[in-house]
Amino acid sequence: MAITSHDVARLAGVSQPTVSRALRDQWGVSASTRRKVREAARTLGYVPIQAGRTLSTQTSGRIGIVSAELSNPFYPAIIEPVHDELARLGFRTILVTDRGHEPVELEPIIDGSLDGVILTTTDLDSQLPYELRRRGVPFVLLNRDTLQQEYDACVVNNTVGVWDVAKLLLGLDHQRIGAIFGPDTASTGLERRTGFARALERLGASLPNSLTFSGPFSSTTGSQGFQYLWKAKPTAIFCANDVIALGALSEAAALGVRIPKDVTLVGFDNIPMSSWNIFGLTTIGVSLEEMAMTAVGLLTRRMEDTEREVQRVTMQPLLTLRSTHGRPRALEEETR
Amino acid sequence: MAITSHDVARLAGVSQPTVSRALRDQWGVSASTRRKVREAARTLGYVPIQAGRTLSTQTSGRIGIVSAELSNPFYPAIIEPVHDELARLGFRTILVTDRGHEPVELEPIIDGSLDGVILTTTDLDSQLPYELRRRGVPFVLLNRDTLQQEYDACVVNNTVGVWDVAKLLLGLDHQRIGAIFGPDTASTGLERRTGFARALERLGASLPNSLTFSGPFSSTTGSQGFQYLWKAKPTAIFCANDVIALGALSEAAALGVRIPKDVTLVGFDNIPMSSWNIFGLTTIGVSLEEMAMTAVGLLTRRMEDTEREVQRVTMQPLLTLRSTHGRPRALEEETR
Repeated sequence: MAITSHDVARLAGVSQPTVSRALRDQWGVSASTRRKVREAARTLGYVPIQAGRTLSTQTSGRIGIVSAELSNPFYPAIIEPVHDELARLGFRTILVTDRGHEPVELEPIIDGSLDGVILTTTDLDSQLPYELRRRGVPFVLLNRDTLQQEYDACVVNNTVGVWDVAKLLLGLDHQRIGAIFGPDTASTGLERRTGFARALERLGASLPNSLTFSGPFSSTTGSQGFQYLWKAKPTAIFCANDVIALGALSEAAALGVRIPKDVTLVGFDNIPMSSWNIFGLTTIGVSLEEMAMTAVGLLTRRMEDTEREVQRVTMQPLLTLRSTHGRPRALEEETR
Repeated sequence: MAITSHDVARLAGVSQPTVSRALRDQWGVSASTRRKVREAARTLGYVPIQAGRTLSTQTSGRIGIVSAELSNPFYPAIIEPVHDELARLGFRTILVTDRGHEPVELEPIIDGSLDGVILTTTDLDSQLPYELRRRGVPFVLLNRDTLQQEYDACVVNNTVGVWDVAKLLLGLDHQRIGAIFGPDTASTGLERRTGFARALERLGASLPNSLTFSGPFSSTTGSQGFQYLWKAKPTAIFCANDVIALGALSEAAALGVRIPKDVTLVGFDNIPMSSWNIFGLTTIGVSLEEMAMTAVGLLTRRMEDTEREVQRVTMQPLLTLRSTHGRPRALEEETR
């Protein structure tokens, strides 16, 4: 019933090993034979079996991407361009979801079924990169880094990003600035928190503890944080990522707080949803497509040469000014 | 350098074939030997190679899920519970993205690297289910059906759903009802469009062509459709899915149109984002978790017995009343 390489061989008038070689583009097969075999395979609808191919070529054509909950819109936004770039290069994408509260199961990643791995949810003290390197599995860190910064990685310059946000807010004459931060266990969370506080300080402002709130990178953190901070009446709130900012915007809508009239909100990452009219979020970030392509490039070069020097790319984020920032209300009314 | 089954055999004091059998839970290995081998494997950090396992057991442990752009929030919302349920059963999820404008590449799906496939983007006339059945690849249709309705499927009762929406709108005394529909090439698009028009008619109302707009299931369709329909001043708009409705809500915000004061908006699917405060979308749908679990159940039973009778599950959707529906403005002002 199933069509085999023997059927193709019969139709093409060649031997079965020739069919294998022709379909795998191996040496010792003339162009005309190759054409004949491919035509026969097409006619019969023959497709070589993948598992056999794995054992003979030692590659699986599959790349794993370790990411968090897909319901967190940052992850689809980064997985999609990674998937597209991998597909363009002939790789398939295996989804490995990191639930955060329990470590990613190691076995499916290191059992030889993947040619490489892209890590997007690495914690600063994660053991996964160490385990992968120890076992010779090629991988790259995307967006999140480890404390030692010793692996191939494509990350955002968070320090520059939060500095630019601080300058924007102070340039608009905000004095009572609050912030909703992510977790200190992630490089993005830690760098954005400490960097933002330091930037305000260097620029002559301050960030009192009473005006900060922290939680996981989720819209729930944004809504809880906004609810909490709003009582202290800040004139601007920096959210450590867009997902938090979207949650904060949503909570502001529920409370009848007008953005940016009553309070300025700025995010980080520039995920596609931030540009939706209903959000119009002012935010800072890099091109997620470019970050995805860069990470895939680092990974494929590592797959070609596991001994090469570690390569790290830090991308410079850019401000995207939309409609959630403005001058503080009191000052705005004064000037009128 | 890499740890092999021979190392495990040496440590456990057994032969290499015994190690293989013990780790694969095969017959002929005593419980105590099994325990000894597992302990040795754990001590050494040994993980069996996946590709070898595939050839010997004829399963890959991998399930493909064919879905559309992840930036369309419906797909992460359905992929996530599918992925979780598959992981619970010990399967890994392979992401296959259907770009819509070109057919899904058949080879990666039928080359034996997948134990089964979940189709979420099937068009009514799609050839993919036919090809999969012809080649004996187990699959299930999730959410979208084919015209012949002849394959294992878990779908929503769209006809009942749009009937309930029509009753809701007429019960609120809307007379000028518009709709933004999806594509007629998808069962969901076709059933929701024809079903909604028929329901209005049976309930004594009508849906003039001038008050309808159609496009792909995307937020862009929602914003364009809202822009177009708004000129004709309907008092209520049914959106054929939540993603369209979120786009329409976003466009309403940009145009300064108040929802539901100026116009009622209702969606379909009840994706998680619809419950965000900023949207608060009134919509109808089934539990996506339950739909995912049901589809995975149908698929695994098909994998166990490819000859069994076709099984089709139609789930009944329920209205979720949030904050985007109300009485028409004119009537509302009259009663005051």
